Amino acid sequence: MSEDVLKKVISHAKEYGFVFQSSEIYDGLSATYDYGQNGVELKNNIKQYWWKSMVQLHDNIVGVDAAIFMHPTTWKASGHVDAFNDPLIDNKDSKKRYRADVLVEDYCAKIEAKIEKEVTKAKKRFGDDFDEAMYLKTNPRVVRYQEEIDTALTRLGESLTKGDLADVKALIEELEIADPVSGSRNWTEVRQFNLMFGTKLGASADSATDLYLRPETAQGIFVNFLNVQRSGRMKIPFGIAQIGKAFRNEIIARQFIFRMREFEQMEMQFFVAPNTEMEAYEKWKQMRMKWHLSLGLGEENYRFHDHENLAHYANAATDIEFNFPFGFKELEGIHSRTDFDLKQHQEFSNKKLQYFDPELKESYVPYVVETSIGLDRLFLAIVSNSLKEEKLEDGSERIVMKLPPALAPVKAAILPLMKKDGMPEVGERIVNELKLDYNVEYDDKDSIGKRYRRHDAIGTPFCITIDHDTLKDDTVTIRERDSMEQRRVKISELNDIMNNEVSMNALLKKLI
Amino acid sequence: MSEDVLKKVISHAKEYGFVFQSSEIYDGLSATYDYGQNGVELKNNIKQYWWKSMVQLHDNIVGVDAAIFMHPTTWKASGHVDAFNDPLIDNKDSKKRYRADVLVEDYCAKIEAKIEKEVTKAKKRFGDDFDEAMYLKTNPRVVRYQEEIDTALTRLGESLTKGDLADVKALIEELEIADPVSGSRNWTEVRQFNLMFGTKLGASADSATDLYLRPETAQGIFVNFLNVQRSGRMKIPFGIAQIGKAFRNEIIARQFIFRMREFEQMEMQFFVAPNTEMEAYEKWKQMRMKWHLSLGLGEENYRFHDHENLAHYANAATDIEFNFPFGFKELEGIHSRTDFDLKQHQEFSNKKLQYFDPELKESYVPYVVETSIGLDRLFLAIVSNSLKEEKLEDGSERIVMKLPPALAPVKAAILPLMKKDGMPEVGERIVNELKLDYNVEYDDKDSIGKRYRRHDAIGTPFCITIDHDTLKDDTVTIRERDSMEQRRVKISELNDIMNNEVSMNALLKKLI
Repeated sequence: MSEDVLKKVISHAKEYGFVFQSSEIYDGLSATYDYGQNGVELKNNIKQYWWKSMVQLHDNIVGVDAAIFMHPTTWKASGHVDAFNDPLIDNKDSKKRYRADVLVEDYCAKIEAKIEKEVTKAKKRFGDDFDEAMYLKTNPRVVRYQEEIDTALTRLGESLTKGDLADVKALIEELEIADPVSGSRNWTEVRQFNLMFGTKLGASADSATDLYLRPETAQGIFVNFLNVQRSGRMKIPFGIAQIGKAFRNEIIARQFIFRMREFEQMEMQFFVAPNTEMEAYEKWKQMRMKWHLSLGLGEENYRFHDHENLAHYANAATDIEFNFPFGFKELEGIHSRTDFDLKQHQEFSNKKLQYFDPELKESYVPYVVETSIGLDRLFLAIVSNSLKEEKLEDGSERIVMKLPPALAPVKAAILPLMKKDGMPEVGERIVNELKLDYNVEYDDKDSIGKRYRRHDAIGTPFCITIDHDTLKDDTVTIRERDSMEQRRVKISELNDIMNNEVSMNALLKKLI
Repeated sequence: MSEDVLKKVISHAKEYGFVFQSSEIYDGLSATYDYGQNGVELKNNIKQYWWKSMVQLHDNIVGVDAAIFMHPTTWKASGHVDAFNDPLIDNKDSKKRYRADVLVEDYCAKIEAKIEKEVTKAKKRFGDDFDEAMYLKTNPRVVRYQEEIDTALTRLGESLTKGDLADVKALIEELEIADPVSGSRNWTEVRQFNLMFGTKLGASADSATDLYLRPETAQGIFVNFLNVQRSGRMKIPFGIAQIGKAFRNEIIARQFIFRMREFEQMEMQFFVAPNTEMEAYEKWKQMRMKWHLSLGLGEENYRFHDHENLAHYANAATDIEFNFPFGFKELEGIHSRTDFDLKQHQEFSNKKLQYFDPELKESYVPYVVETSIGLDRLFLAIVSNSLKEEKLEDGSERIVMKLPPALAPVKAAILPLMKKDGMPEVGERIVNELKLDYNVEYDDKDSIGKRYRRHDAIGTPFCITIDHDTLKDDTVTIRERDSMEQRRVKISELNDIMNNEVSMNALLKKLI
């Protein structure tokens, strides 16, 4: 069923100009997408909300916009050259390549499916008396299945942590995993494959520099730490925020715009004194959750997932997970990155990356707490959560995107009931009064009902209709997208109503 | 002198957090730059002004945001795989590589310098009687120099147009051009070098796809033409706008952020019926010039430069040139691209890219007029034009960036005269009243004079000072950046004053 939801989201996103497959006329480029005329407005509004709330509303956070190309030593220092790998395995017969860990995980997922089948059967058999928890613990077949899964995943995790790729291959052979395409069990060794995209800078073969497309935006902040701190006379604690593209050559990129090879991040690195990082980490956990909740997508759709296995650079980490159509998945990461990155850059660049603390009267390499959102994931979270099919009282159906009003691509549709009697002129006047502050759309095509449906489908919060009464008393009706209720208001009140109910400021005020 | 201006701009940009060299701690990556805390705000404001004026204020223009990665056939269709090349030549002794055309141009520039020297000498000799135009036409030595230049450049142009690279080499040898580094004349053949950055998508060596980083954003619009037209029910004439990164592996990248290997474009493709393209071209020439003039950088700093040699896809083209510190150079291009791109994509994709015109009752491939700005160039134009050194009445100097107020990174600095007597509290109240709408900065460090200088240097239009009178009558002084004049206003008037004088809307109103 959830797969159905995702399909509907993808199809709606295309039909209404939110997201198109990239290079679709050439049958597409896998896992790459383009944002259409409504998608780009929604995406820009998300960016603006994040930027304003992080930078403009915090007097100790500033922004940067670093290049995608960085000096290659950056990625040696960050660890990406050595450790940003996927374990790959080839089937010698089919010549297909797979992620070794995914082969094992898919194998376990099949056993999991068997367990579910047993549970379903047992439910039918025992009816209301069925105690699922007890059944899972006691049914011998189910217990054996579960043990098999646990053993395989534990061994996989240990082998990958140790970097013992030979054991990953041994595991695949012991589990008798076959190529899902050909059924062959004739596997190569497992090898590490670096996920960074490489390119060459410069024309001469001998002088060309091997570059990488950045796999994360964070390093653009770290290498500029001193430049920003000094030129901005920043005092710790302070943050540097950035929105920008990053690139990862994922072997398996899927789930629409959830995991793409080219994606956009919204990151903030918060620099603090050593030993104060856990306090900052806890504060940002709460602040970032509050930010997400301000969008009104439902508190029940978020949860923290604290990491048990920490990355080498972190001493605490959590994900804010969102309930996507395919289940709870990472939306934002909050990581206490310690002084790892700055220290590494200090070592590789031979430049001091220290801060003199005027209060402590000592110099130190600051600690860092990072908040990092996948912008495309947030876009998907908002769109998939907002898309609703509703049965109306008259028995008909409507499709409506209940987007957070401040983020909607079009804030108001201006609809003259008829294309005569001076209604278009009043419409034009209203457009002119609103268009400096809001993206509004004048729409006089089709019946009023069809126009309502169209604006429901792209999430326009207000439909403002001009009718015969307008010409008499300068009033219009505002039809509200979610409730479909209509109210009669003066044209002169429109700007205030928009400001109170659908403006970016209205949303920002929830954070203050 | 103009080189001095550029040096001052670069140094000021670094000192005040506008532009840093990328990966500076690793001694930089050539021709790549990062935008700092003030640069990113200025850049975002430029983007917003362009986007609002192009998309929000035009009811027949919408946006897209296409991926940097596109299907590789895109670049065959567009002609970039075959024709987006620089002619390169290597010196066999020094092993240095050069652009062959630039070698010839530099050679001609040296002769040009000789002519100028002769003119200077003659001016001195003849004094007020000197008729430069006559001298250039009649002095035998100068005439010979000029002929030499004309012959060389004409032949270079013809050889490149014909793709006769052997003749380009012959020309270099006939002119006896030497390697500027080693003095050697031992040259290789001239070869074409493609300017696109390549990378590989996917992990398997045999199944990896060769991709390019897009060298222009325009193709992301063309391949989405039908998607946008249909899902947005757009009627011709209409436009699609886009802001995004593009990449060119320039052999010679220089002049700060004017020519970078990674850069950002703001483009709009306007789709029209065949035979109406010249009308649209003329309209957009005027509209775009008006847009630039709205920034107030001085009418004398702009000029049109109509192209005589048209690209293969164009039937008319002009540049809006700006007076940079290094002379008049292209800032924006306006091109009548005909139906070339859409027809090429139609041919290579086997998909019809046609529009059914309900008025003409026929289908056709639309014609396209493009407006294309280099965002980083526009940033440089604004910054270099705005940076002024001024002598003050008291004999001291100030450095001030007279940025267009609506584009300034910080719109107002809130300055308590002292950190006591309740002034900080009033400051905080003003910050809270303004910060939702404007990026404002609370600043209580150093003397008031130093704070004025600092905000002059980053281009803050208003300094709002809280003093003892404020506490009595709720008034503050506004010091205006350019005139340095001060006026006393009520705190309650601040929002209106900001809205009228420094807001984005104030700038947008100039276009309506």
